[in-house]
Amino acid sequence: MNHSFRPGLWTDLYQLTMAQGYFLSGRHKERATFDYFFRKNPFNGGYVIFSGLEEALRLLLHPQPFDRDSCDYLLEQGFHRDFINYLKTFRFKGDLISAREGEVIFPTAPVLSVEGSLLECQWAETLILNRLNFSSLIATKASRIREVAGSKTLMEFGLRRSQGWGGMDASRSAYIGGFDSTSNVHAGKTYGIPISGTQAHSWIQSFSTEKEAFQVFIDHFPDRSILLVDTYNTLQSGVPHAIEMADILQSRGQQLHGIRLDSGDLAYLSRKARKMLDEAGHPEVKIYASNQLSEYLIRSLNQQGAKIDGYGVGTELATGQADAALDGVYKLASVDGNPSLKISENIEKVTLPGRKEVYRFFHSNGDFRMDGVLLSNENRISTLYHPIHPSMNTSVEEFRKEPLRHFQIKEGRRISPKRKIADIKEYAEQQLTKLAPEYRRFENPHVYKVGISKQLFTLKQELIDQKKL
Amino acid sequence: MNHSFRPGLWTDLYQLTMAQGYFLSGRHKERATFDYFFRKNPFNGGYVIFSGLEEALRLLLHPQPFDRDSCDYLLEQGFHRDFINYLKTFRFKGDLISAREGEVIFPTAPVLSVEGSLLECQWAETLILNRLNFSSLIATKASRIREVAGSKTLMEFGLRRSQGWGGMDASRSAYIGGFDSTSNVHAGKTYGIPISGTQAHSWIQSFSTEKEAFQVFIDHFPDRSILLVDTYNTLQSGVPHAIEMADILQSRGQQLHGIRLDSGDLAYLSRKARKMLDEAGHPEVKIYASNQLSEYLIRSLNQQGAKIDGYGVGTELATGQADAALDGVYKLASVDGNPSLKISENIEKVTLPGRKEVYRFFHSNGDFRMDGVLLSNENRISTLYHPIHPSMNTSVEEFRKEPLRHFQIKEGRRISPKRKIADIKEYAEQQLTKLAPEYRRFENPHVYKVGISKQLFTLKQELIDQKKL
Repeated sequence: MNHSFRPGLWTDLYQLTMAQGYFLSGRHKERATFDYFFRKNPFNGGYVIFSGLEEALRLLLHPQPFDRDSCDYLLEQGFHRDFINYLKTFRFKGDLISAREGEVIFPTAPVLSVEGSLLECQWAETLILNRLNFSSLIATKASRIREVAGSKTLMEFGLRRSQGWGGMDASRSAYIGGFDSTSNVHAGKTYGIPISGTQAHSWIQSFSTEKEAFQVFIDHFPDRSILLVDTYNTLQSGVPHAIEMADILQSRGQQLHGIRLDSGDLAYLSRKARKMLDEAGHPEVKIYASNQLSEYLIRSLNQQGAKIDGYGVGTELATGQADAALDGVYKLASVDGNPSLKISENIEKVTLPGRKEVYRFFHSNGDFRMDGVLLSNENRISTLYHPIHPSMNTSVEEFRKEPLRHFQIKEGRRISPKRKIADIKEYAEQQLTKLAPEYRRFENPHVYKVGISKQLFTLKQELIDQKKL
Repeated sequence: MNHSFRPGLWTDLYQLTMAQGYFLSGRHKERATFDYFFRKNPFNGGYVIFSGLEEALRLLLHPQPFDRDSCDYLLEQGFHRDFINYLKTFRFKGDLISAREGEVIFPTAPVLSVEGSLLECQWAETLILNRLNFSSLIATKASRIREVAGSKTLMEFGLRRSQGWGGMDASRSAYIGGFDSTSNVHAGKTYGIPISGTQAHSWIQSFSTEKEAFQVFIDHFPDRSILLVDTYNTLQSGVPHAIEMADILQSRGQQLHGIRLDSGDLAYLSRKARKMLDEAGHPEVKIYASNQLSEYLIRSLNQQGAKIDGYGVGTELATGQADAALDGVYKLASVDGNPSLKISENIEKVTLPGRKEVYRFFHSNGDFRMDGVLLSNENRISTLYHPIHPSMNTSVEEFRKEPLRHFQIKEGRRISPKRKIADIKEYAEQQLTKLAPEYRRFENPHVYKVGISKQLFTLKQELIDQKKL
């Protein structure tokens, strides 16, 4: 989170245990490939917005992940001196190929692969999972809220209920996924996200009257006041007082920016408040709403004809309810030149072996058609197969395709340009327009197809047969 | 998270906006009291384990919360120069009184209050909520898992699926709530939590055979090997190979520590594995289990007679599923000597006004009887009333009582001793034994009573009547 933070120990103990095992048995420089992918879309939705990559790359490329303190700690914990000496100058020198941050991604496709020494790949696992899983969850949640909010203002207000320091990741990913701003000042400063806020009930309560509280506020913040109108009674006190303030500001050649509703029936209150503001000659005053909002509540408010210009969303967004976690995994695909797979009694959990490429295929109108996974040494692909039921297959010869993944790190050097958060956000927004509405809907969305090549299918079967006892 | 982190901006923008408003209108030094409390037990449970306090105190007492960088940022964001100059030397100089970290706490009782200048109290709000809400959620979740796990080993494995940097808070609170260790090495080092781990499927896959993978591992970690036995086939391959390793270690005068089951029917597999290990003369080899475990699954495994000595719990614990957030709030109770309350159309959301004390009453056997909230100037309490229905009341004269809260900070100085995490953990464990089982059960737990004094009830009613339009 902090630039002085050392990422070496930001991992599970067993990664370091195994790293030491590889080191002491002389296998640590064997070349390995690991794939990152997830298995299930969150929120019963049809897609995920890939987020967290820039943060993962930054930490992964720290010039000295293990400082003296970290090494002293590992010595206390019983790690071997030779291994610790190795860690003292260790830095990640492998390759990383990945979808772009902000990309729309789907279950089972390896959207990111790490290739390097067995030791460095193993060390990187937890860091990568920790950076990508939660960020992608929240960017996805934010995009769903944006879906129903249209062009209305969306403010992330989650810090007080976020999962501790996870509030940093939540603010960053909410912005990427479609929010306009965050209330989290530290995140605003750290990541360059616009910050926004209104006023709290405590401000209003701290004055003898609501009117005085409003008056002092607009005197100090004439250009950006959003007055909280539900402290006493929204329609009988809050809105009338806000109208008085709008009049005062108007007489000074200024404007009241808005009011905020934070309790009660938001659909009803917003319609009434809009009418009162308009009738008082203040169509310019915007109405914001907050209070345990989610994409479902905002959709419901739309359906009820609520007159709301913007929403503040906190807990539901910042903790990714109702899912709280994306099930992304990082699996060994190849070691020392040999393809590897993890078998499982659950056939859907068998991984895809070998070094692979991922292509995205497009409809002629530019919309996403499907994704295809093939082995790196295949140079041509005509048909994609269902990963488990090969009788289900699709000819893709007619479709335009693009590689989904791009080199980010080559031999320990960042080779992709560092991307600004606003660019990532714009990319996510633009990519989502290429995903047809049936994949974006909340109820029983269409299942986006991810197929594999015949060669990959065959390799997988061969390896499964070899592993069988 | 990091010691070089400055907590000044770890807040919502509106706290700073309001702070500037108080400052510019000359009200910033008015004395205020804010109360922290939560409204609803998470997980449909009957209690919460209070956690996060040491972290909150540490950040709150930072000698310079706003460094030059923070101030420059606030200037860019349009804050007033005079206010920013004030922040440059600002530090928290108020009082903080609180229940001890690790305490068992209940809805509506103000377990923590901050008293100080309006400005500093307002600034502290988000920091306090962010530190306490999530930590208390996870400590509570961990205590529920401990409840069903009895004396079995509990390892927290959540970092890969935790909510980003929130993995730090999760590891700390899981330990306080009853876990024995974490896999999160950085949390282990930072907070002094024991770390533990086993081995991953990738280790096994990276060798030609499972047996070789086990062999190399026990050679390097003879004293602490936990072998993952489900990579190929648990009962036909993993357990027999683990038995071979146990034989080898035994022949060297050592012991295999354990095996880990990570898929399949854990109840069935553990019983079978136990039998195989015992019959092979290895009753000393422990059986650990993991795979999407929760308190409910562990209880079910117990009921099925699973032979499991310890559990690794990840996502469910580290993200506090199925709730993901505790609804703790921080409300203005008094300003400039006047009690204040927040009215609401929802009578249960009306806050308790004034400067208050909280007592815990005890049964003669030492068990918790109920909590009582009274005004600070009351010196004697005989009857406690339901906060909304005064016809429901309880005489408490016969019960021994203790203050629930203790001074932690006085005029900006920490006056309570800093507590070690192991002591907090022990305190939580000890306090939970004083909560009768009917409050700890998962299904429809008994509702623990929190009453208020007659004077507090009357003050609340008077203020409600005054606020009515």
